[in-house]
Amino acid sequence: MKISAAVVGAAGYAGVELARRLLEHPSFELELITSDSDAGQRLDAVYPAFAGRSDLVFAAHDAPELRDCDVAFLAVPHTASLALAPGLVAAGVTVVDLSADFRLKDPALYRKWYGVDHTAPELLAQAAFGLPELFGQELAAAAERHAAGQAMLVACAGCYPTATSLAAFPAVHAGLAQGVINVHAVSGVTGAGKKPSLRTHFCSANEDAQAYGVGTHRHTPEMEQILGAPGRVAFVPHLVPLNRGILSTVSMQVPAEGFGLRQAHELYARFYRDAFFVKVLPPGQQPKTSSVAGTNFAHLGLGWCETTGTLVVTSAIDNLGKGAADQAVQCANIVFGLPEERGLTTMALPV
Amino acid sequence: MKISAAVVGAAGYAGVELARRLLEHPSFELELITSDSDAGQRLDAVYPAFAGRSDLVFAAHDAPELRDCDVAFLAVPHTASLALAPGLVAAGVTVVDLSADFRLKDPALYRKWYGVDHTAPELLAQAAFGLPELFGQELAAAAERHAAGQAMLVACAGCYPTATSLAAFPAVHAGLAQGVINVHAVSGVTGAGKKPSLRTHFCSANEDAQAYGVGTHRHTPEMEQILGAPGRVAFVPHLVPLNRGILSTVSMQVPAEGFGLRQAHELYARFYRDAFFVKVLPPGQQPKTSSVAGTNFAHLGLGWCETTGTLVVTSAIDNLGKGAADQAVQCANIVFGLPEERGLTTMALPV
Amino acid sequence: MKISAAVVGAAGYAGVELARRLLEHPSFELELITSDSDAGQRLDAVYPAFAGRSDLVFAAHDAPELRDCDVAFLAVPHTASLALAPGLVAAGVTVVDLSADFRLKDPALYRKWYGVDHTAPELLAQAAFGLPELFGQELAAAAERHAAGQAMLVACAGCYPTATSLAAFPAVHAGLAQGVINVHAVSGVTGAGKKPSLRTHFCSANEDAQAYGVGTHRHTPEMEQILGAPGRVAFVPHLVPLNRGILSTVSMQVPAEGFGLRQAHELYARFYRDAFFVKVLPPGQQPKTSSVAGTNFAHLGLGWCETTGTLVVTSAIDNLGKGAADQAVQCANIVFGLPEERGLTTMALPV
Amino acid sequence: MKISAAVVGAAGYAGVELARRLLEHPSFELELITSDSDAGQRLDAVYPAFAGRSDLVFAAHDAPELRDCDVAFLAVPHTASLALAPGLVAAGVTVVDLSADFRLKDPALYRKWYGVDHTAPELLAQAAFGLPELFGQELAAAAERHAAGQAMLVACAGCYPTATSLAAFPAVHAGLAQGVINVHAVSGVTGAGKKPSLRTHFCSANEDAQAYGVGTHRHTPEMEQILGAPGRVAFVPHLVPLNRGILSTVSMQVPAEGFGLRQAHELYARFYRDAFFVKVLPPGQQPKTSSVAGTNFAHLGLGWCETTGTLVVTSAIDNLGKGAADQAVQCANIVFGLPEERGLTTMALPV
Repeated sequence: MKISAAVVGAAGYAGVELARRLLEHPSFELELITSDSDAGQRLDAVYPAFAGRSDLVFAAHDAPELRDCDVAFLAVPHTASLALAPGLVAAGVTVVDLSADFRLKDPALYRKWYGVDHTAPELLAQAAFGLPELFGQELAAAAERHAAGQAMLVACAGCYPTATSLAAFPAVHAGLAQGVINVHAVSGVTGAGKKPSLRTHFCSANEDAQAYGVGTHRHTPEMEQILGAPGRVAFVPHLVPLNRGILSTVSMQVPAEGFGLRQAHELYARFYRDAFFVKVLPPGQQPKTSSVAGTNFAHLGLGWCETTGTLVVTSAIDNLGKGAADQAVQCANIVFGLPEERGLTTMALPV
Repeated sequence: MKISAAVVGAAGYAGVELARRLLEHPSFELELITSDSDAGQRLDAVYPAFAGRSDLVFAAHDAPELRDCDVAFLAVPHTASLALAPGLVAAGVTVVDLSADFRLKDPALYRKWYGVDHTAPELLAQAAFGLPELFGQELAAAAERHAAGQAMLVACAGCYPTATSLAAFPAVHAGLAQGVINVHAVSGVTGAGKKPSLRTHFCSANEDAQAYGVGTHRHTPEMEQILGAPGRVAFVPHLVPLNRGILSTVSMQVPAEGFGLRQAHELYARFYRDAFFVKVLPPGQQPKTSSVAGTNFAHLGLGWCETTGTLVVTSAIDNLGKGAADQAVQCANIVFGLPEERGLTTMALPV
Repeated sequence: MKISAAVVGAAGYAGVELARRLLEHPSFELELITSDSDAGQRLDAVYPAFAGRSDLVFAAHDAPELRDCDVAFLAVPHTASLALAPGLVAAGVTVVDLSADFRLKDPALYRKWYGVDHTAPELLAQAAFGLPELFGQELAAAAERHAAGQAMLVACAGCYPTATSLAAFPAVHAGLAQGVINVHAVSGVTGAGKKPSLRTHFCSANEDAQAYGVGTHRHTPEMEQILGAPGRVAFVPHLVPLNRGILSTVSMQVPAEGFGLRQAHELYARFYRDAFFVKVLPPGQQPKTSSVAGTNFAHLGLGWCETTGTLVVTSAIDNLGKGAADQAVQCANIVFGLPEERGLTTMALPV
Repeated sequence: MKISAAVVGAAGYAGVELARRLLEHPSFELELITSDSDAGQRLDAVYPAFAGRSDLVFAAHDAPELRDCDVAFLAVPHTASLALAPGLVAAGVTVVDLSADFRLKDPALYRKWYGVDHTAPELLAQAAFGLPELFGQELAAAAERHAAGQAMLVACAGCYPTATSLAAFPAVHAGLAQGVINVHAVSGVTGAGKKPSLRTHFCSANEDAQAYGVGTHRHTPEMEQILGAPGRVAFVPHLVPLNRGILSTVSMQVPAEGFGLRQAHELYARFYRDAFFVKVLPPGQQPKTSSVAGTNFAHLGLGWCETTGTLVVTSAIDNLGKGAADQAVQCANIVFGLPEERGLTTMALPV
């Protein structure tokens, strides 16, 4: 029997990607999709790619059927999850949250960066962090508790933190990276969400590149938490004209004697040797965001500036895939005791 | 046991799409990929989307293992299939040909439009035409002969003819369309192939739209053959800046009394009611190429110019999907007695 | 002394393009720009390309200074010009209107297609039609009356009608084109205006092509009026992913004996031999929208379908240039007795 | 009387942009364009944007008329300028070189990074460095010598060094930036040149972002020379899907007490207060590459990471404009005693 699933906020970009994945997933049954803006509309009327593939209709966010599901994926803005998750977990629904509400372990940080008090600190303390390649033990523990009958909460990592941490973690964890970690990332426009705005108008974003949120982006403390490097991340995101994809370029000073491209590649290849979804490319090859579009894969590339002693690790993901919906499904797979790659093995279009 | 498959010309865009589909297909086993230009290279070195998904290495076109396969997909330029197909069929290999070599039933037309004599007219006479929604009987007959032990040849329809004929056939077949059939189509740049050229250079194709081959495109006689309308198709293809997709807009004069949008929709909905891969959109909704990218689906939209009595049918497909690789797999499914949709049910990315 | 000019609706795409042209124009002085949505903001805050090039600040639409200008360009939605133009002309301000309000000579047609009564039929009767290559005499007459001290009204042609009529007029005017004139056009996204919407969201328009307004687009009667061909235009516009540009592909049946590509080229080359802004390309060359982006130029290409007897003329313009702002400046040049090309000779970026 | 000018390598992207600028320049007369690949062809046959704007035909590179010009712009690959420039200067032709051959003051660095010996070290020693906002004195001195009758050589700065140095110089020059200078830049595809390749094929570059040349790009020593910071630049360039534009994001550690966004803005605004072509945007506003496309303008934006003490300066230019052709014209203006902005004041398309 299939696991019944709901997507709350399914009309947004991450939510609709979840809907796609769950509809094609062999173990989950997508029974409910909700949307405040599009309640009452057919899914395929809003997203015609579903024509002939689904007859689902958006319900309202407060649909009571939500509590009958085995798992609810929350693809809603921050504070909305804070309002929803405690009740769902209490009702026995496992929650996979894609918002920022349960990512920062320290409620004070949440207040500082999101401007509101955290109203569910106990649940926050129990949340498993959803970035399986780096926090596998937390998720394994959650799977055990879930197998014992407990509803769980997974706080999925953000898109930039996922790309960036996969690139930085091995070097930082090994104690090689010294001082400030410079992160420059470019993102496709789906990262800015579905709501139309002057900034995401085709004619503004097309044929343009622009930085934004320099030194102020809310994903900064999340990266620092994941890397265990408080106050060390200088993060500069940019918008570039593509639909999907994040390329995060992480520059780290590595003063270690004798360190170079070969050593870096050995370190990363070893670190990710068992990671189904992370591919460390051969030295000299740089990842392309198009090679992972629509997937849960991350491609990592390594570079080395000899004169400055700078290790440069680049990381390509799909912001809606590994950076959102697919990683959420990967986490759900784990918590429900399924192989982590189930329903996620499709590769990107080769061109 | 799986059906062993080869892709000849797998480094080209249609060929690599075939490789992707066959690698993920539950019934075919991709055992051989060939390429003249990339022989000896790993598939994932040329197309990094395959990193971690396949260890295949390109063989040369004349790899002897080709004759050991159950089915060979030929994704090669015209005349190359003419040279390869007869030997393969004689060796008992079923051939699904994506080139133009076996599409035109009349060898004289082949000589006129392709400038060479057809050297295998007997095989041409036996070839099944690979456009299942319109030529299902030919393919069913081929499946029967194949089940009886005979190697078959399928000549898959071209990309523009597939999109255009799906749009035009019901009206033409019903005798409604009178006179010249005006076909204006736009295609993404993968339609021009993988070989770099000034025309497909990013900086030339980006931010540009241009017609080409006006009145001289080789897909014209193929459309006329499919529609049974010799000398009636005026075809104007255009290049627009997207990777994948054909939108074919077909304008037909329908002088029938009382005909209009509602009648058109009824006709098309009825005609395609059993077609898994063809969706006739509700009146007033126009298809988007992005909704079918990476798939074997075709979306049709209907429009009506009241003052001129013109029926306008638009058809969106992926030129590499329904227009090439996916349709070839659909044909192979049919010939090998599998459900036609096997391995082809994934939908497009919703955004 | 320079001619003082105002742009009403200067925050929209056509309006801001007018602002750019007038700021760099040697004979006009841009003294006033208005905007309802952005009143009080600096021009370069809304459009940073003006940084360091202009200190203008948007005034409100009802700025009284408007009546002190020599010429007012109205880049506003239809009905807004209808409200503004009569008062301005009465106050002695020459009006160059980019809206649809004074294009259709027959008020009944205006009511039919725009759903409102025309409230200034006398002014409508006096308006000169702003498409200089085809209506030069109307504009010359307006220039004479203007030289005699009269404020004039020019109703600039729409973007699709401009591109389409330049392509169709010579053949239609010569009596060669018979029956229905099939017009399929693709437009860049600036054609849909500056207001953000789901349809113009980057992630919807990017990597997509879609038809819209099939058989119902309001530019249809305008084309028929220009061509003198009521009830004969079947018009299908499409949205494609580029910022600027219209490529209009016009298919016409020419049953004349002995007619072909060479005859067509002679006809068009002769017709436009004195047109500074219209270039008829050599037979076999098709226009690229990128070659006219940001300019007032139109490039025409000729094609011929031998079997069907169809003349195919393609026309590339910039929808904001020749299709809007630049053509408006060209008209103003003429009415004010300046050389028509003044301030408009810059060519497109070559790549 | 106009100054006679030639462009060597005018069929390449920088060369053709020079041709456009010189054709529209009020003081230069473009008399000769050369191309090895396209010799004998009309300029407007290769770049149709010139249709009706120029009847020039490409001559061969060794056209003897080259020596009759007052100024020759060399838009050729490195080593080609090394072969050409000495003879031209000796013949009294002022040379504005866009290649890398005369940029690095130390011939040993040239050998190290370009793999060939510098064969004209005396001329190298005399070359003025073509980045007027930072090396105005060198160019003023060259203008004086030129006024005294001497032919001069200007070595124009590269595209990445121009964008990057404008962003970094004020902070580095003021002694504020400590340690490694991290430069992450994205470039449009024209930066990769006109020659078709798999990498610049539309279908590879579109919908993709990728780093390249990490730690090995030849523009690194040029940046270090300009900034007077040997061994301190860690440079990571990226390719993103736009035609034109470089956005260089420079991260510098500034440990100075009390330094912040306001201080940074004051520093930069003061530094560039007299620079016609450099605009320092208000704090909080980030530059868009589209706002400077097709121009010689550079827009700078300032950001500050408080926790890490990192100053982030972003710089947007057109790689073919300020990064190549336009800056070359600016240098020529200066050397020939003209106002530096002559022929370069056109702004970018606002949208």
